Amino acid sequence: MTEMGFAAQSATGPLEQFAFERRAPRPEDVVIDILFCGVCHTDLHLARNHGGFTTYPIVPGHEIIGRVREVGTAVSRFKAGDLAGVGCMVDSCQHCKPCLQGWEQDCVEGSTYTYNSVDRQDGGVTYGGYSGSVVVRDKFVLSMPDGLDPAGAAPLLCAGITTWSPLHRWNVGEDSKVAVIGLGGLGHMALKLAKALGADVTLFTRSAGKEEDAFRLGADHVVLSGEPEQMKAVAGRFDVIIDTVPYDHDVNPYMPTLALEGVLVLVGYLGPLGTPVNAGGVVRGRRAISGSFIGGVPETQQMLDFCGAHGIVSDVEIIPIQKINEAYERMLKSDVKYRFVIDMASLKSQGA
Amino acid sequence: MTEMGFAAQSATGPLEQFAFERRAPRPEDVVIDILFCGVCHTDLHLARNHGGFTTYPIVPGHEIIGRVREVGTAVSRFKAGDLAGVGCMVDSCQHCKPCLQGWEQDCVEGSTYTYNSVDRQDGGVTYGGYSGSVVVRDKFVLSMPDGLDPAGAAPLLCAGITTWSPLHRWNVGEDSKVAVIGLGGLGHMALKLAKALGADVTLFTRSAGKEEDAFRLGADHVVLSGEPEQMKAVAGRFDVIIDTVPYDHDVNPYMPTLALEGVLVLVGYLGPLGTPVNAGGVVRGRRAISGSFIGGVPETQQMLDFCGAHGIVSDVEIIPIQKINEAYERMLKSDVKYRFVIDMASLKSQGA
Repeated sequence: MTEMGFAAQSATGPLEQFAFERRAPRPEDVVIDILFCGVCHTDLHLARNHGGFTTYPIVPGHEIIGRVREVGTAVSRFKAGDLAGVGCMVDSCQHCKPCLQGWEQDCVEGSTYTYNSVDRQDGGVTYGGYSGSVVVRDKFVLSMPDGLDPAGAAPLLCAGITTWSPLHRWNVGEDSKVAVIGLGGLGHMALKLAKALGADVTLFTRSAGKEEDAFRLGADHVVLSGEPEQMKAVAGRFDVIIDTVPYDHDVNPYMPTLALEGVLVLVGYLGPLGTPVNAGGVVRGRRAISGSFIGGVPETQQMLDFCGAHGIVSDVEIIPIQKINEAYERMLKSDVKYRFVIDMASLKSQGA
Repeated sequence: MTEMGFAAQSATGPLEQFAFERRAPRPEDVVIDILFCGVCHTDLHLARNHGGFTTYPIVPGHEIIGRVREVGTAVSRFKAGDLAGVGCMVDSCQHCKPCLQGWEQDCVEGSTYTYNSVDRQDGGVTYGGYSGSVVVRDKFVLSMPDGLDPAGAAPLLCAGITTWSPLHRWNVGEDSKVAVIGLGGLGHMALKLAKALGADVTLFTRSAGKEEDAFRLGADHVVLSGEPEQMKAVAGRFDVIIDTVPYDHDVNPYMPTLALEGVLVLVGYLGPLGTPVNAGGVVRGRRAISGSFIGGVPETQQMLDFCGAHGIVSDVEIIPIQKINEAYERMLKSDVKYRFVIDMASLKSQGA
């Protein structure tokens, strides 16, 4: 079936309207009419080929909320009309040890991502959520809890699970002291989730003026990371630091703020840490530098159910698809509170 | 009381005979006649002021085994004639949270080290185990299990606990796959302890020819870290890597050899890691870079009891104290299998 979406045709060109073929649904597939799709930094990076592995045309989008239009004959978990979500992955081998443990993001054979990936059954390229509909294997479709605003819920599928997974893994709860570095799409979700888990929550930020927002989003404290006195005052404090910074940065100043056996978890950056990491910062106090990459499907469902129970969604600015190129430019300037979400109904309009 | 030892008088001079005053025993003190004292890299670093904080004269030595000569009136755990051990610490505040948890090495007010430290009661400088006797607060004296060779047991007090602590913290047991980087004083203890804990044990080494020793010490496998094919063959394998390398080195090649949620633990180096750490190496697979610094007193006793039950001691080369300067030079060339231990009876001889 022919579908309409927005695609980049090259690393330097804008995203523009693009017609393409969605595969005919297989017995285990769910066809979803997309209502909203969040805009993640990764969309921009891949549209502009920052990683060097983009296949054009590319239709980005992996924070997808929609209504089930139809399901294949082998699907029992969903039916037409259900509100459903799709995140960063649409398939994996389903038989390796990580897959069997629900860590599809660690699939030994490689996960199939929602866009710019090779469909492991038909060899075609996957196209993401900047489009009218999507066809996804039922095991990778999430059930959306009742009562959440669907636009606000879209970013849970990436920003939500990316911050939930390390909070969950490192046992954050009522006795925990958690800090979050950076107040963007990931950071604002980390504040909300850590607070809802019962933790005492601190925001580390480089710039003053974010206190009001931080407190509203769940922070109990705000620390200016450039102020040595403020940093010293939180020495030895945090069990877990969620580091959402999406570019190279110096992690050393944060290490002494960790409690004994505390861990700093990188979730926003995959490149080399240019400032030499001081081994003493982990040797002393048995601290650790770890990381986390999205999360598995069962964990994503767990996070969605938690958000449903606690009324947690992302703070979003809704845009029509025609504003996507402008949104990318604003995102580069951190000019968004805190996530752009595309209203996919706009796809049928005549432009902005 | 006047005691004889060997001290460095400057960063560039040799260690030489040195007479000094040991404090009169306090009610909670144990006086120990030293039988053997291991030679740790830290001894050399501090004798030569590599850290810039050495007070001269310095009497090194923190792997001490001896016989209790007498105990203070408040001491009930030891009596004259007992075999006892002293490690890297001789005191701490005893009231901060880490101290109360048995993590005296993390004492908030700072631990008192066995040498080159300030005695927290009388303000004097502490002198280490390159001497005839030592006076130590009973809480920092270890009880030596029966049946261990006392010379071989001396290095357990530093090399033993330094490698035991991370193996213990990261739950190494029969189902674990452990790797050790480097085959020196720390590395050979890590092999023995990991094997005795039931783990499947691999040695990473840069140079061929260590297989025989490695297998004898407890390794099940040896991997040449400079051989890409060998490194690739152990991708995703290890739950814990104990990294004993005592100088700056690149940790990135080891990260892909960790299993999901595996951890590389630095125990031999405290400085900056000059080769940029790749964030992707921890983000992918939720791996971690951590560290560990000696261990607390209760954990040290636990390790000694384990070694007693399993007949584990260090492989040592026994030297007279008069050979200490030569031993330092050989240690710098890794020319020791695997720890020098000073027979302190030599202190009374007329030189080598």
